[in-house]
Amino acid sequence: MAVGEVFRSSEGGPASQQDMRRQNLAVVLGTVAGQSPLSRADVAGLTGLTRAAVSSLVDELIGRGALTEAETAPSGRVGRPGRALSVNDRGPAGLGLEVGVTHLGACVVDLRGEPRVWRRVERTNAGRPAGRVLAEVAALGAEAEAEAAGLGLRVEGRVLAVPGVVPNAGQGLIEHAPNLGWHAVRPADHWPEPDTVPVPENEANLGALAEYWQAEHGAETFVHVSAEAGIGAAMVVDGQLFRGARGFAGELGHIPIHPDGEPCPCGSRGCLEQYAGEAAVLREAGLAGSGDPVALLAERAGAGDRATLRALERAGRALGFALASAVNLIDPDGLVLGGAYAELADWLLPAVRAELAARVTVRPWPPEALRPSALGRRGALLGAALLTARQIIGDPTRLPLA
Amino acid sequence: MAVGEVFRSSEGGPASQQDMRRQNLAVVLGTVAGQSPLSRADVAGLTGLTRAAVSSLVDELIGRGALTEAETAPSGRVGRPGRALSVNDRGPAGLGLEVGVTHLGACVVDLRGEPRVWRRVERTNAGRPAGRVLAEVAALGAEAEAEAAGLGLRVEGRVLAVPGVVPNAGQGLIEHAPNLGWHAVRPADHWPEPDTVPVPENEANLGALAEYWQAEHGAETFVHVSAEAGIGAAMVVDGQLFRGARGFAGELGHIPIHPDGEPCPCGSRGCLEQYAGEAAVLREAGLAGSGDPVALLAERAGAGDRATLRALERAGRALGFALASAVNLIDPDGLVLGGAYAELADWLLPAVRAELAARVTVRPWPPEALRPSALGRRGALLGAALLTARQIIGDPTRLPLA
Repeated sequence: MAVGEVFRSSEGGPASQQDMRRQNLAVVLGTVAGQSPLSRADVAGLTGLTRAAVSSLVDELIGRGALTEAETAPSGRVGRPGRALSVNDRGPAGLGLEVGVTHLGACVVDLRGEPRVWRRVERTNAGRPAGRVLAEVAALGAEAEAEAAGLGLRVEGRVLAVPGVVPNAGQGLIEHAPNLGWHAVRPADHWPEPDTVPVPENEANLGALAEYWQAEHGAETFVHVSAEAGIGAAMVVDGQLFRGARGFAGELGHIPIHPDGEPCPCGSRGCLEQYAGEAAVLREAGLAGSGDPVALLAERAGAGDRATLRALERAGRALGFALASAVNLIDPDGLVLGGAYAELADWLLPAVRAELAARVTVRPWPPEALRPSALGRRGALLGAALLTARQIIGDPTRLPLA
Repeated sequence: MAVGEVFRSSEGGPASQQDMRRQNLAVVLGTVAGQSPLSRADVAGLTGLTRAAVSSLVDELIGRGALTEAETAPSGRVGRPGRALSVNDRGPAGLGLEVGVTHLGACVVDLRGEPRVWRRVERTNAGRPAGRVLAEVAALGAEAEAEAAGLGLRVEGRVLAVPGVVPNAGQGLIEHAPNLGWHAVRPADHWPEPDTVPVPENEANLGALAEYWQAEHGAETFVHVSAEAGIGAAMVVDGQLFRGARGFAGELGHIPIHPDGEPCPCGSRGCLEQYAGEAAVLREAGLAGSGDPVALLAERAGAGDRATLRALERAGRALGFALASAVNLIDPDGLVLGGAYAELADWLLPAVRAELAARVTVRPWPPEALRPSALGRRGALLGAALLTARQIIGDPTRLPLA
């Protein structure tokens, strides 16, 4: 940023002592989360806070259930006195839920970000009444919460991943999920239990956040492409999700590829989804879409099927063309192929890289800046669960005081 | 942002009393800048700070030369005691400089954002040695500073607008300015006076910032297109310039329009600049590029010249195609046609709007969200001068204490 970032409170107004304490709680918890086990003295050394301040902050974090303190010094740190602080793996937790086109999912992560409960069931959700689908995912979530409780975990927040548009100011509204056939669905209107209604979020956004939090690539600004039935993308900018003015950023699937190309159900022509979307690739490969079409494409391509290889190469070129626009506009550190694309990366990457090399020419663009996600189709659900854990690390006062 | 913004110090570390005071100085100065004249009591009422705190902060801001306090209450505020605080229009100031392809410029603005000195001279800069061009703009800047000193203004920062790429971490490097023929030029290496070396910045970025600070449209997230010899764009996101991971964001001119289109000097094919850039439009209109080509195009189009109208319509369609990608990816509140495009807006807007209407279909996109800039070709120089003034408003401790 050319314009210097200024110190600002969470409200944008004047800074107060409470704001300062909240920030310092987050600094201490974030430091322990990043490098635990640490002693109180270690934390003082790493943060620049006084030992007295650290002790008061640590006591509050223990009281809120975010930290635990072991009786003995961490092993391998001979000579350093003090007890070992760690992020609590038996206390606060996040629940992630997912409604996909062909599956439901639930996941619980602890504050360390470890998935402790993981459930995924196949379901044909497209075209079914939203209320019925939501009741089923709510039941799956309740089972996951019960299992987590048995592990000593207490769910502090619930997030629902959906393949649809979730406006910034929608207060829990899913405006449109075309591949489910949902319009203006509000989970709160259908949830069986008012106390456990989840916050909906676009699955591509959550996949990108999971990639940022879990992958060890170090890029702070990247575009994450996520394909399942449709093609979505999300941007992480300086470590924060970029949602756009109204929450509609990342519609990579509707970037125009050919001025007079194939008509798209969205109303435009020549959109990327008509060349690199699941239905287009299956059609080009001469395959039917039953079962798991991604696994089928990978199997055929792995066996050297010419039509499948040609279809994936064509999809890769279209994707590279669209991503060249994204790179020229946004200047990310990296591009990540996530979702189903991660499983097809062997066949997509060469064509995508060739297009990027030809079209991103006004700046250096190393081919390795494009890479597949290690999370693949697990990313969105994991991101939904992690969101709560990361929000607590960023502001521990979200946790009740014991 | 789905992930809650957390209170953070300017360093990202623990918050201190000094950070708190710096933020509160900015809150008080920003409040007076937005609504002056105000009394100290007004400021306390508007900010929620105590009167004692406001008095201490105001005294410091007066000491730093940022505020003045008149002897009497502001008129029209009968019954409210207290003297009137205003932002100082005789103290700290910002100097903007510009090297264009065919001109040089210098501008001084006061802390209120008013341009007090404005100079622009025609010069053919393309292909001349960078050192000579920089010496000339330095001389123009020194004249402007001298004139400003006569008005009681003291220049606190200097920014140089250039039609080129300025990397984030380049420490004053202009990496590449293709239309000037500059590669790896560092103004500090050529500047006659070490104390007045300006910070270089891309002209499209500065045009976008000027638009944000001066226009009264209220969009916090928008894309500003700026055309002179080339086509640049810049994004303002939540009121902050978005520069990308390395400072290369906004290369709208090299968004691909046709997969197999015209070769572009950048090395790619079918880039927007080959359809909507100045040279392409002049060629299509059958015109030579001498004198002021933008004025010539506007004159011909105004006179109904068929070839010129056709060339502008074609450029507008290409621009609309590229902007559809930008809207689908970034989801801005608005799009602004700045630079030379502002002067050609009457003939460009219909085609741009038609393409956007056809291609931005997955969300509402009102035609009036695209509008011409009122600043036009003045934007970049004004933005260069305003940058210093805005940085001071954001952090008044940049000013020395008297």
